[in-house]
Amino acid sequence: MVKLILVRHGESIANANNIYTGWNDVGLTANGINQAHQVAKSLHGIDIDHVYTSVLKRAIISSYIIQDDLDLNYVPITKAWQLNERHYGALRGQNKDATRAEYGAEQVREWRRSFFVFPPKLDKRDPRVGPYKYVDPRSMPLSESLYVASKRIIPYYVDHIAPGLLDGKNQLVVAHGSTIRAMIKYLEQIDDDDIDGVEVANGQPIIYELNDSLDIVSSNR
Amino acid sequence: MVKLILVRHGESIANANNIYTGWNDVGLTANGINQAHQVAKSLHGIDIDHVYTSVLKRAIISSYIIQDDLDLNYVPITKAWQLNERHYGALRGQNKDATRAEYGAEQVREWRRSFFVFPPKLDKRDPRVGPYKYVDPRSMPLSESLYVASKRIIPYYVDHIAPGLLDGKNQLVVAHGSTIRAMIKYLEQIDDDDIDGVEVANGQPIIYELNDSLDIVSSNR
Repeated sequence: MVKLILVRHGESIANANNIYTGWNDVGLTANGINQAHQVAKSLHGIDIDHVYTSVLKRAIISSYIIQDDLDLNYVPITKAWQLNERHYGALRGQNKDATRAEYGAEQVREWRRSFFVFPPKLDKRDPRVGPYKYVDPRSMPLSESLYVASKRIIPYYVDHIAPGLLDGKNQLVVAHGSTIRAMIKYLEQIDDDDIDGVEVANGQPIIYELNDSLDIVSSNR
Repeated sequence: MVKLILVRHGESIANANNIYTGWNDVGLTANGINQAHQVAKSLHGIDIDHVYTSVLKRAIISSYIIQDDLDLNYVPITKAWQLNERHYGALRGQNKDATRAEYGAEQVREWRRSFFVFPPKLDKRDPRVGPYKYVDPRSMPLSESLYVASKRIIPYYVDHIAPGLLDGKNQLVVAHGSTIRAMIKYLEQIDDDDIDGVEVANGQPIIYELNDSLDIVSSNR
């Protein structure tokens, strides 16, 4: 039996300030650092063979804290932009209450929760677009629904993380709310309409035990 | 012009306690953490494309501090046992003054500084031998001279770090006194008898500027 562990980064400064973050690169709050320590506590005794994270520091630093607490600093870590948070388009960097006041609570809920609806796109010339050193400019997103984000997250999982699992190596993924929701949807085969209800808390690892065919044998979710 | 930056980890708990460390895995002192911050200060403005470090936490955590201070958390990091400190054999974990009292200052100096002489070997059944998950047991060292350690350090440099430099990518290596002395010897073509005099301080990066053939054009050493 092999383990896949999914962890959302600890609370970031933007989470605390009620701001849409997406691809903005912000650090952890003191609370977020604590949550990473909590994650480590709940993973004690589990062997971890490889760590995957995004290129965003709130996830990377959460990984470092978890590895250090578990005395697993030596475990290889791979940082991949494909595991980044969903791209929040024009909402990126905006206050959540202000967007609710401007667009209405129902519209904002749709943007946040619907599988297919995406937030207003950034203008191509908006400085927030980049350049982003990892992404072919032709494919640079201006906004992503969870569906669109899944089109990079799941292929990355299939190409990079699943092979390690098939090889019997436990894999830890420290990433973002949307990254993990996309992976849960894929792993548990949740319907497009039902992913809405799936919450991923900071600081609480989801642990799947998988058999040789990567069927879920047990999970704490 | 491409840059190769060599950094010795900050002071470790064993350095502070005057103990031979080698492959023992010990953390940084407060002073060591400060030295890592100092390194970051002196590297401000230098673009870094890849970080290489050992599988020992005093080097790994030094790397993390440097990357975080430079806001370069996203830069890929590779951890390789081939960049570990020299294996100190039976001296590993011993107090430096106690070994001087036991074997004499001249003998200890030879073990520490000579290129070819190695410290007393560990007994094969000594628990300090391992198993060490990275190394083919047939090749597991029981003690290393700088010469023997070079036989793993330099091939790693040639196979993994030099290709990045040839590709025009600046490489940061955060490692150990012996690792860096071996690389300096190789890069500057220092004679076996003269490597003795080469000191590598904690917290002071060595920066080489190399041309397309990886000849040294300038350095701060």
